[in-house]
Amino acid sequence: MRILLAQINPTIGDFAGNTNKIRHAIDNAREHNAQLVVFPELAITGYPPEDFLLLPHFIEEIERCLDTIVKASKNLAAIVGLPRRNRNSSGKPLYNSAAIINDCKLLGFQDKSLLPTYDVFDECRYFEPSESMNLWEIGGLKIAVTICEDIWQHGSELKHISYKRDPIQELTKKHPDLVVNLSASPYNLSKFSSRYQVCAKAASTLKCPLLLCNQVGGNDSLIFDGYSLHIGANGELIDYARGFVEDLWLVDLDINNERQKPQSGRPFATDAIENLHDALVLGLSDYFRKLKFNKACLGLSGGIDSAIVAYLAAKALGPDNVLAVTMPSRYSSEDSLSDALALVNKLGIACRNVPIEAPFCSFLDLLEPQFDGKAPDVTEENLQARIRGMILMALSNKLGYLVLSTGNKSELAVGYSTLYGDLCGGLSVIGDVFKTQIYALARWINRDEEIIPWHTINKPPSAELRPNQKDSDSLPDYDVLDNILQAYVEEHQNPESIAELFDYPLDLINDIVKRIHNNEYKRRQAPPSLRVTEKAFSVGRRFPIVQRFI
Amino acid sequence: MRILLAQINPTIGDFAGNTNKIRHAIDNAREHNAQLVVFPELAITGYPPEDFLLLPHFIEEIERCLDTIVKASKNLAAIVGLPRRNRNSSGKPLYNSAAIINDCKLLGFQDKSLLPTYDVFDECRYFEPSESMNLWEIGGLKIAVTICEDIWQHGSELKHISYKRDPIQELTKKHPDLVVNLSASPYNLSKFSSRYQVCAKAASTLKCPLLLCNQVGGNDSLIFDGYSLHIGANGELIDYARGFVEDLWLVDLDINNERQKPQSGRPFATDAIENLHDALVLGLSDYFRKLKFNKACLGLSGGIDSAIVAYLAAKALGPDNVLAVTMPSRYSSEDSLSDALALVNKLGIACRNVPIEAPFCSFLDLLEPQFDGKAPDVTEENLQARIRGMILMALSNKLGYLVLSTGNKSELAVGYSTLYGDLCGGLSVIGDVFKTQIYALARWINRDEEIIPWHTINKPPSAELRPNQKDSDSLPDYDVLDNILQAYVEEHQNPESIAELFDYPLDLINDIVKRIHNNEYKRRQAPPSLRVTEKAFSVGRRFPIVQRFI
Repeated sequence: MRILLAQINPTIGDFAGNTNKIRHAIDNAREHNAQLVVFPELAITGYPPEDFLLLPHFIEEIERCLDTIVKASKNLAAIVGLPRRNRNSSGKPLYNSAAIINDCKLLGFQDKSLLPTYDVFDECRYFEPSESMNLWEIGGLKIAVTICEDIWQHGSELKHISYKRDPIQELTKKHPDLVVNLSASPYNLSKFSSRYQVCAKAASTLKCPLLLCNQVGGNDSLIFDGYSLHIGANGELIDYARGFVEDLWLVDLDINNERQKPQSGRPFATDAIENLHDALVLGLSDYFRKLKFNKACLGLSGGIDSAIVAYLAAKALGPDNVLAVTMPSRYSSEDSLSDALALVNKLGIACRNVPIEAPFCSFLDLLEPQFDGKAPDVTEENLQARIRGMILMALSNKLGYLVLSTGNKSELAVGYSTLYGDLCGGLSVIGDVFKTQIYALARWINRDEEIIPWHTINKPPSAELRPNQKDSDSLPDYDVLDNILQAYVEEHQNPESIAELFDYPLDLINDIVKRIHNNEYKRRQAPPSLRVTEKAFSVGRRFPIVQRFI
Repeated sequence: MRILLAQINPTIGDFAGNTNKIRHAIDNAREHNAQLVVFPELAITGYPPEDFLLLPHFIEEIERCLDTIVKASKNLAAIVGLPRRNRNSSGKPLYNSAAIINDCKLLGFQDKSLLPTYDVFDECRYFEPSESMNLWEIGGLKIAVTICEDIWQHGSELKHISYKRDPIQELTKKHPDLVVNLSASPYNLSKFSSRYQVCAKAASTLKCPLLLCNQVGGNDSLIFDGYSLHIGANGELIDYARGFVEDLWLVDLDINNERQKPQSGRPFATDAIENLHDALVLGLSDYFRKLKFNKACLGLSGGIDSAIVAYLAAKALGPDNVLAVTMPSRYSSEDSLSDALALVNKLGIACRNVPIEAPFCSFLDLLEPQFDGKAPDVTEENLQARIRGMILMALSNKLGYLVLSTGNKSELAVGYSTLYGDLCGGLSVIGDVFKTQIYALARWINRDEEIIPWHTINKPPSAELRPNQKDSDSLPDYDVLDNILQAYVEEHQNPESIAELFDYPLDLINDIVKRIHNNEYKRRQAPPSLRVTEKAFSVGRRFPIVQRFI
């Protein structure tokens, strides 16, 4: 049986565009003599549609699209993810569902059983769970249809959560010939591996092959990596679709030989840093493309963070669409400007130089009588960062650039950044990338030739907001900081365990933890960051601003 | 039976402080010969603790506090809200629970059955539902313990949501003598009435009295109004506790006469605008007090929004703790400055005048060569707003003021505000108050004497960012705008129904709806707003920035 896994990149609520993609994939399947096309979770709306699901006129559009898709499925079968109404008098208003379609007939729906409601997921806000798993006969095969999370309870890859049901276990009595899984499974650094492990476990338990069709593309902060999977009946990874691009991927399933089928021999996913790079480029380019923006500007300081963001923007949008703005101050080193210009030349992007001395002096004069004789402090540093933010926003307003914010996750965590200053922007590109990962990314980018100036990579990081300032004046070394952040933010370890784990002083950990919580207010007003870790500072991490625990 | 309803104001995660409040209430109950003390939902942690619930060391603290409270309950009974561990191997990690304590013994727990996961509520993220309702015998009475949402399915006040279970219906077979309800039920303009209706329905069905103990106080955006309730066995409102303040409220329950008991004769809640006023004052003062801030500054323009915020700040923090900053530009009218000064004098707050002409000229000079000869537009307007934001933030940084943002909900909805300009601040005081409600509030404040200058109230609203600018150049009249916003944002009506309902042109509605969604990116970076309506722009409304539906 030939099956097409339609790893598509939908836009939230773009009913015409998404339905066209679905119809195009159906036509493509027919041309290639596939009998079945499988789409991702909520393919008609894109994932996650969030509170659009509460608008009755949004749901009506879904129903119209489904009609169109059913009519387009002449001579083949399709399994399409969509939200559908719960017509019972109680329970949540919708199901997260899969429509099972065959030759212009809607056979029925398989609803999702396990509804993730943790981290960035809010599915219990909208959906009622399915209560049963059914098999669907297509092309002589008994097919079990699962939706994303449905297969995760059976693996051992879920952290901090255990469901009362296990749909894979429930399916053992039904002996399916094939399991398909419709996913919208977002990328993070270790996701390929855990996603594969989960699929392997399900296939092994059910002794049948499993095909996972994942969404690809960026929607707001979330990046979906694709990498749809074909798993053999013994749990072997037979092959996988491309990562970070759309892929209409044909799989020839020889149902009697799926157990013996050899692996494709492709490496077990790709390089972690290359994936990180591809994820950021995709997230950035989709944010712009789906908003119908094409030009970005950013402040280029000569430091590593803005260098990486300039590189990623040039990659995602094309060098002609990127404007770097150097905004030197009395505290900027000459090296900074020359490093910035070297990068600009290498990337072939435009650059404007707008020194901030004049408005800085103007503010100092204006405010001097208001400062009650107090000594210079962080106020004057913030003024510089905010003047730079204002210049970027003025260029954005006048010339139509979307401003990229260039802060990294390590800074954002401890508030080493200026609200309304370097936190300005429509999108934070590396706000979920730790500083240590930024360095790894820079070295990977330079693997064949010097693109990011080595001088930028090798010099000690500095905000250059006062004479001879270094990040290390205010922060521990970034490898220490990132270890603490990872353990506290991603793994919820308490300060004592972290101190013991790394043999760091407890006072240091407590200080960092305090800074994390005291700076919640800044992150609440930061631009959305592309999410690449298991726990980003975003909707996936919900802490009060006002609290007394820490 | 004498019962104390301990309507307390906890701070999230302040275990020492909250436990002290609980012990104090227990002592107070004992002094007044009460046999039972009832506390609000999650009293030990404060509501909502959000992702602190995911930290194991946070949960351990709760258990230590419970021990202390049990030991303090000599000779009386207490029912205390708290999160407790789910010790089963599956399901969510916690229950939202009530500890039933009598004379230093923990009798057991009643867990919450209905877990709100809509609007601002995320309870399915953390909690497993209870599966049964039990009665607890205290002082010879069979008491049913319910937690907040548990009683709401039985009323008909829930919108857009219907649970599969109805704990009140389940209790009918058990014939309780009394129902208590531990609540953390946030304020909105119509909440007193709907909360009363729900309690009345439960009491009538069960033919027994109901006592609801609500949390009071502000936690981040949420404001809890208190107004704990005593409902008779026939569903009559017998009496209620004070609104917007802590209240250790004694209720004498004459169980055989609860059906005939007369009403207290107090009016059915208080004036809606007075409640709105009290809610904003409480939300503002708790935000500062719980953050250990006491000084606020704000830009005072001479318009009605900043006038109302200055008034509320003076009321909440005391006039000595409020600094108004007038920041006139070349476009400011003389009236604006004189209106601002009249208010400053009336309120007795400090005022500084910081004209923005010098930095404005400095930016215009600096940017002129960058603007490629383009004509003045919104860029120059935003520059002015952002210079004002920078001045306020500099005063905040140097002198320790927390900046109040002064925008209203109508502006925030359609993006009639400058990101990093008037959207600067640690707290948006009236960001969930429609412009038409601001006028009602101003008239209420002026009911006995002129506090807000009548000239401020009566003049046509203007941002004064270009010559002769009026809000009505860019927006429909505020009564029209607010009708549309209410119907679309709060009631999820589609544009066609709204056009028909008010007989407005469909194009107008579509334009406003488009502006609402196109400005999602600004609201995402706005300061937290005190929530006073059923649907605030905050965590309770989750729409993607990148979308194509609208």
